[in-house]
Amino acid sequence: MLRAARLLTRQRPRKAQTRAQHLLVLLRHGQSEWNASKRFTGWVDVDLTEQGREEATHAGIMLKRHGFEFDEAHTSLLKRAVRTLWSALHCCDQHWIPVRRSWRLNERHYGALTGMSKQEVKDQMGEELLQKFRRGFDKKPIGMRPDHPFWTGRDRRYQHLGPNALPTGESLRMCQERVLPYWVDNIVPAMRRGKRVLVAAHNNTLRCLVQHMDNIAIENIRDFEIPTGIPLIYRLSDEMEPIGASTASARSRRTVSARPL
Amino acid sequence: MLRAARLLTRQRPRKAQTRAQHLLVLLRHGQSEWNASKRFTGWVDVDLTEQGREEATHAGIMLKRHGFEFDEAHTSLLKRAVRTLWSALHCCDQHWIPVRRSWRLNERHYGALTGMSKQEVKDQMGEELLQKFRRGFDKKPIGMRPDHPFWTGRDRRYQHLGPNALPTGESLRMCQERVLPYWVDNIVPAMRRGKRVLVAAHNNTLRCLVQHMDNIAIENIRDFEIPTGIPLIYRLSDEMEPIGASTASARSRRTVSARPL
Amino acid sequence: MLRAARLLTRQRPRKAQTRAQHLLVLLRHGQSEWNASKRFTGWVDVDLTEQGREEATHAGIMLKRHGFEFDEAHTSLLKRAVRTLWSALHCCDQHWIPVRRSWRLNERHYGALTGMSKQEVKDQMGEELLQKFRRGFDKKPIGMRPDHPFWTGRDRRYQHLGPNALPTGESLRMCQERVLPYWVDNIVPAMRRGKRVLVAAHNNTLRCLVQHMDNIAIENIRDFEIPTGIPLIYRLSDEMEPIGASTASARSRRTVSARPL
Amino acid sequence: MLRAARLLTRQRPRKAQTRAQHLLVLLRHGQSEWNASKRFTGWVDVDLTEQGREEATHAGIMLKRHGFEFDEAHTSLLKRAVRTLWSALHCCDQHWIPVRRSWRLNERHYGALTGMSKQEVKDQMGEELLQKFRRGFDKKPIGMRPDHPFWTGRDRRYQHLGPNALPTGESLRMCQERVLPYWVDNIVPAMRRGKRVLVAAHNNTLRCLVQHMDNIAIENIRDFEIPTGIPLIYRLSDEMEPIGASTASARSRRTVSARPL
Ligand SMILES: O=C(O)[C@H](O)COP(=O)(O)O
Ligand SMILES: O=C(O)[C@H](O)COP(=O)(O)O
Ligand SMILES: O=C(O)[C@H](O)COP(=O)(O)O
Ligand SMILES: O=C(O)[C@H](O)COP(=O)(O)O
Repeated sequence: MLRAARLLTRQRPRKAQTRAQHLLVLLRHGQSEWNASKRFTGWVDVDLTEQGREEATHAGIMLKRHGFEFDEAHTSLLKRAVRTLWSALHCCDQHWIPVRRSWRLNERHYGALTGMSKQEVKDQMGEELLQKFRRGFDKKPIGMRPDHPFWTGRDRRYQHLGPNALPTGESLRMCQERVLPYWVDNIVPAMRRGKRVLVAAHNNTLRCLVQHMDNIAIENIRDFEIPTGIPLIYRLSDEMEPIGASTASARSRRTVSARPL
Repeated sequence: MLRAARLLTRQRPRKAQTRAQHLLVLLRHGQSEWNASKRFTGWVDVDLTEQGREEATHAGIMLKRHGFEFDEAHTSLLKRAVRTLWSALHCCDQHWIPVRRSWRLNERHYGALTGMSKQEVKDQMGEELLQKFRRGFDKKPIGMRPDHPFWTGRDRRYQHLGPNALPTGESLRMCQERVLPYWVDNIVPAMRRGKRVLVAAHNNTLRCLVQHMDNIAIENIRDFEIPTGIPLIYRLSDEMEPIGASTASARSRRTVSARPL
Repeated sequence: MLRAARLLTRQRPRKAQTRAQHLLVLLRHGQSEWNASKRFTGWVDVDLTEQGREEATHAGIMLKRHGFEFDEAHTSLLKRAVRTLWSALHCCDQHWIPVRRSWRLNERHYGALTGMSKQEVKDQMGEELLQKFRRGFDKKPIGMRPDHPFWTGRDRRYQHLGPNALPTGESLRMCQERVLPYWVDNIVPAMRRGKRVLVAAHNNTLRCLVQHMDNIAIENIRDFEIPTGIPLIYRLSDEMEPIGASTASARSRRTVSARPL
Repeated sequence: MLRAARLLTRQRPRKAQTRAQHLLVLLRHGQSEWNASKRFTGWVDVDLTEQGREEATHAGIMLKRHGFEFDEAHTSLLKRAVRTLWSALHCCDQHWIPVRRSWRLNERHYGALTGMSKQEVKDQMGEELLQKFRRGFDKKPIGMRPDHPFWTGRDRRYQHLGPNALPTGESLRMCQERVLPYWVDNIVPAMRRGKRVLVAAHNNTLRCLVQHMDNIAIENIRDFEIPTGIPLIYRLSDEMEPIGASTASARSRRTVSARPL
């Protein structure tokens, strides 16, 4: 995983940075209990494993070592992301910055697959369908119904939204459509106000943001994973375009302009 | 226009209102200079005509007469909607309620059609295409380019969003996709917190909200207009469904459950 | 009045403006019904007179003529200030900027004097006491009781605060103690974020802000009035000190560093 | 300490709770490094000791055991309070509630005493003066100057306020004057909107809130301490008065109506 990430982000010669530079750091939560047991998690509020907490601490230490300062942080309503953020803020000694939580940064909702192991899905539906669910852009899992053991409809943390607003199963595209309004209305305006932003979230949520920022061709999304507990550093122009990103056409673009710490 | 509105909303026998009732009042801005000259307005910040200001005042007087009280109001970044809200708040003596403005409540962006009269478009592209642009759900106008006389890209009021977030031309569906995050994240949570909400906005923005609330079949959207300066009163259940709305299947649904004042 | 204002603010030679400059414009509401009839208003929600609306329009025109741009506006929960702000924003064509309302910018609460004419108070309590009430810093009027015709305790707009938070009569010092938290937590942070701020409020509320910014000796506050409908322009350093203000010791300071438009 | 707290809060016969009840839980941070070494801390951002973290965890477990649910939390900009809140939220499994941080909930600013041990102050200034500084209501410590090793003037977390807003030394009264605007503008409105509120802060900040809610006579404040890591449970009426609190006159009042968990 890590190798792939480093592969993905060969250092590019840095263009002269005359344009305004905005700092955005993306941090995927450390390993969770169901990452360990390879089960589809989505909106189930599983906790970090011991390894996951260490990864989060490691991320904070790296941020501290490289002298990163943040003005605000954003995370989801799921503890694996919130606790990763807490560890990172503790280790880089910035407990005091404002933190904003939103359901829009929750992990992709895996619908009826939620709780099943990837092996079970492979056995019941075959490897091809499993990969389509996991990394295809438009493959929507069967919807979760109220009798599902992990049904989120009654969860108090989503009551302010009302039932119809909550997903019951998302393709990656649907997940992106739900994440991007948060990017447009909260993260971008913060950076354009000069804020340095830390986002602690989930694999697919961050893949949606990376695909949007790096304008990666849909068919090439399969190729990259967000490494757990390794901060991805983005320097963005005023137009919110990664500075130093290769200008190769989006179609062939595989690279992520973020530089892992 | 008024007749059509009344036609649209035959009074339904009111079901016993035991369920929680939320109040939402939708108010389309009074006649604008370009409504009068039948030009495609979109995001151009034209003002109200004298008639438009009277319509806004009339709406406020009706709200006052029927004893409506509001806890917060939402409107767009366009003066024809803001001034309509100001007149309504003045006439129903609620100048003090918090008002929130958002680009997401702006009128549908008509792209390269902006500034053209409906007659010009009819002459150049034919009646059928004109109707498709105006009332079709998926017909996207040709995009507005930076050299367009009404290009919005440099407008100070949108600077916090960054260039790529701004539409350059929207189908009604694209307009709805840009409006609904505001409904989900601001209007619904306010009502579920017990707030009585007044929304002063634009014809197409409100049609998007009405289509969503009343679950009106796409092909039936053509049939209804939001009357200018006449408050549409919605009583919504906790699930944000109109109370008293007919349960006829969405397909054949033409009616709007809102009751004009 | 106007002459006094100009007198108060003899033009100072402008120091080289190297330091960061923040723009703050203070605008007192136009003449109200009770200003006209010289009655103590405080929190009674009286409206503007025709003259008051003209003064507000005039202020907006002057702001427009001098090319002032604002990023946000703040006002009270009283219509005479809200409507003054609306007129100003309309005339300088900035209807779209965010507006924040707070009870902390309400006029000083005149307690049991509320509703009495200044003549009545003079007859019943003498000129000296009248002046002490109006312009002394520590003279607290007798408290307003719930049976007072203008009792604010049941006003819906203050319900979120709870009864004990509301004043029943304030000295100018008490009024300042209630205004300054808003200055510290909302107005200053906005300016330090680079926002250009317009505050539309009341005579005594603005006198409290001016006394604080210009560090005017208590005994000298009697001498200055905020002119109605004339924008007072402040240029402030990063330390929120008026740039170009005379450095004469605060004790003898009579001048206001603001420049009326 | 604990004994004193229990002593202070003899269980009162609970009045019939017909009136609206609001839940407010106050939580003092666990033991800090300088609590352990009995040094005046104030705004110095010292961390929790191992014991302090256990106390915070214990508080969370007690909240969980008694089934407390919160809708929002408030804390200071100091890590000993932020980390106490994090531990409590983790243990009662409510990582997802919105958390708001404010300088107004910081510990009382001890000015030039900051960093000195209580023993040093006793040796240099005598026991009586030490007690006056610590528990007197109006005793203001000598101000902290920019050359003080723990000068807060350049701390990035306070930059949005500007230099003059920051205290350089506070009496308990001055601390309360700086805390109460937060109570009035944030905590009370949240409760009146039906929110159940958790406040994690500091000994003197919480003493200021308790003195205000329980209307405790100034001379009686000396007697009570907020125990570390033990949640104080307040049930408040709509008028924000403790329900079940004894109606003995404030003068003689020593009791705190809060019930420690
Ligand atoms: O929700 C999950 O199961 C994981 O966070 C992401 O699953 P993935 O392995 O498909 O990215
Ligand atoms: O933007 C416009 O032109 C009008 O507000 C709405 O146009 P319509 O007549 O197509 O609804
Ligand atoms: O509240 C009032 O009566 C006026 O706004 C201010 O009164 P004044 O004439 O004492 O400033
Ligand atoms: O700031 C401090 O030193 C402690 O938090 C409180 O001090 P105290 O012992 O005087 O309450």
